[in-house]
Amino acid sequence: MENKSQYFNKAAIDEMALRQRTLLINSLTGFKSANLIGTSDKAGQTNLAIVSSAFHIGANPALMGFLFRPHSVPRDTLENILSTQYFSMNHVHSDIVKQAHQTSARYPKSVSEFKAVGLNEQWIDGFPAPYVKESHIKVGLKFCEQHHLSINATELVIAEIENIIIPDGILEEDGYLDIEKANTVAVSSLESYHTTRQIDRLSYAKVK
Amino acid sequence: MENKSQYFNKAAIDEMALRQRTLLINSLTGFKSANLIGTSDKAGQTNLAIVSSAFHIGANPALMGFLFRPHSVPRDTLENILSTQYFSMNHVHSDIVKQAHQTSARYPKSVSEFKAVGLNEQWIDGFPAPYVKESHIKVGLKFCEQHHLSINATELVIAEIENIIIPDGILEEDGYLDIEKANTVAVSSLESYHTTRQIDRLSYAKVK
Repeated sequence: MENKSQYFNKAAIDEMALRQRTLLINSLTGFKSANLIGTSDKAGQTNLAIVSSAFHIGANPALMGFLFRPHSVPRDTLENILSTQYFSMNHVHSDIVKQAHQTSARYPKSVSEFKAVGLNEQWIDGFPAPYVKESHIKVGLKFCEQHHLSINATELVIAEIENIIIPDGILEEDGYLDIEKANTVAVSSLESYHTTRQIDRLSYAKVK
Repeated sequence: MENKSQYFNKAAIDEMALRQRTLLINSLTGFKSANLIGTSDKAGQTNLAIVSSAFHIGANPALMGFLFRPHSVPRDTLENILSTQYFSMNHVHSDIVKQAHQTSARYPKSVSEFKAVGLNEQWIDGFPAPYVKESHIKVGLKFCEQHHLSINATELVIAEIENIIIPDGILEEDGYLDIEKANTVAVSSLESYHTTRQIDRLSYAKVK
C-alpha cells in the first residue's frame, strides 16, 4: 500500500451523505459472514432472508447472535423466530450468491422468498423451520433470548445450535470445518461478495 | 459438492470433545473479521489483542460491537477500554497475520504485545489509544455501553466510531471501501486466515 492516507474525524463522518456513510461504516469491521435465515410462520408461510449479522457467541453452550433492524427492513424473519422459536441458518456459497442477495428485496409477507428467488425449501427430521436445500452448511437454531439495543433500536437475538448438517469431507479430525472447501463466501460492506483462499492455519499462540 | 452429508443433533454436538466442539462451532457462523484492538491503561502501559468478534451495529450513529470472554482470556483489553473509554481497531492484512495472531498468546500485563510481536504503536492527533502503524485501515472508537450476556458470561461492548484512517485510493465515490485492495484478511474458526477475491458487487435488490 502507498503511504498516503485519508483521515476522517467525527465531524467529517457526520457530514457524509447517508448512503455513503452507510456503505463506508458497513465496510469498517472487515469481512462478514453471509447466511440465509429460513423461517416459517405458524400457518406454514415460509420466509428466507440474507443476513451478514451472524456472529459467534460461544461454543459451550453452542450459541450464535444475530442483529436485526426491525425499523429499516421488513420484520418477517424476526417475527417468525419469536413466534415459532426456531430457524435455520444456511451458508451462502459462490453458486447461490445472486439468489441469496435477491432475498433482500422487499417482498410482501405473502410471498415466500424461497420461491421468488429460486431456492428450495428442505425440511429435515421434523425440525420446524425450512433449510435451504442448495446450501452446503446448514444449522438448526432455537431462540434463547432477545436484547433490545436502545442505542439504535436494533434487536440482538441469541440462539442455541440444535443441529448441524455439513457435507462429507470438510470436517477435520480436530474439529476444524473447512468452510472454504464448501465455497462459503464472505461479504464486505452491503453488497460485495468474495471467495477466499487460505493463507495459513496457525497453531495456538504461546509466549515465546 | 458431493451430495452425501453428515448430520449432528444436539446430543452428538454435546458429546464432542471440548477442543473439537470449539473449533467446529467457531466455524459455523462463516467468515469473520480479523482486527487488532489497541489500548492503553491510565499509566500508559499499552496492550494489543487480536479479535474476530467485531461486528457492525449501525451506520447512523456509527456503532460497532465487540464480544469479550473475560473468564477465558486475560482481560487487559476490556479493562483498559472500561478505564480509559477509548481504543483503536486496526484491520489485519496479509503481511501482518503472524504478528497479529501472536498477540493471542498469554503475555503478562506488564508486557506490551506491540513490542512482543514486533508491531509499532502509532499515536495520532491526540487520540488516547495507540493504533497499529503497520495496519492500513484504522478506526478510533469510544466506549458507549456494556451488556453482560449472562447466558455464557461474556461482555458485549458497544462503541462509537470517532475517526477513520484509510489509505488513499480505496474509498470509492459512493462510500464503498475496498478492503480487499487493502489486503484485509478474513478468519475462519479460531486460527485460519484467508485472503479474498471479489466475485461481484451487486446492486440494491428490488422486487422484480
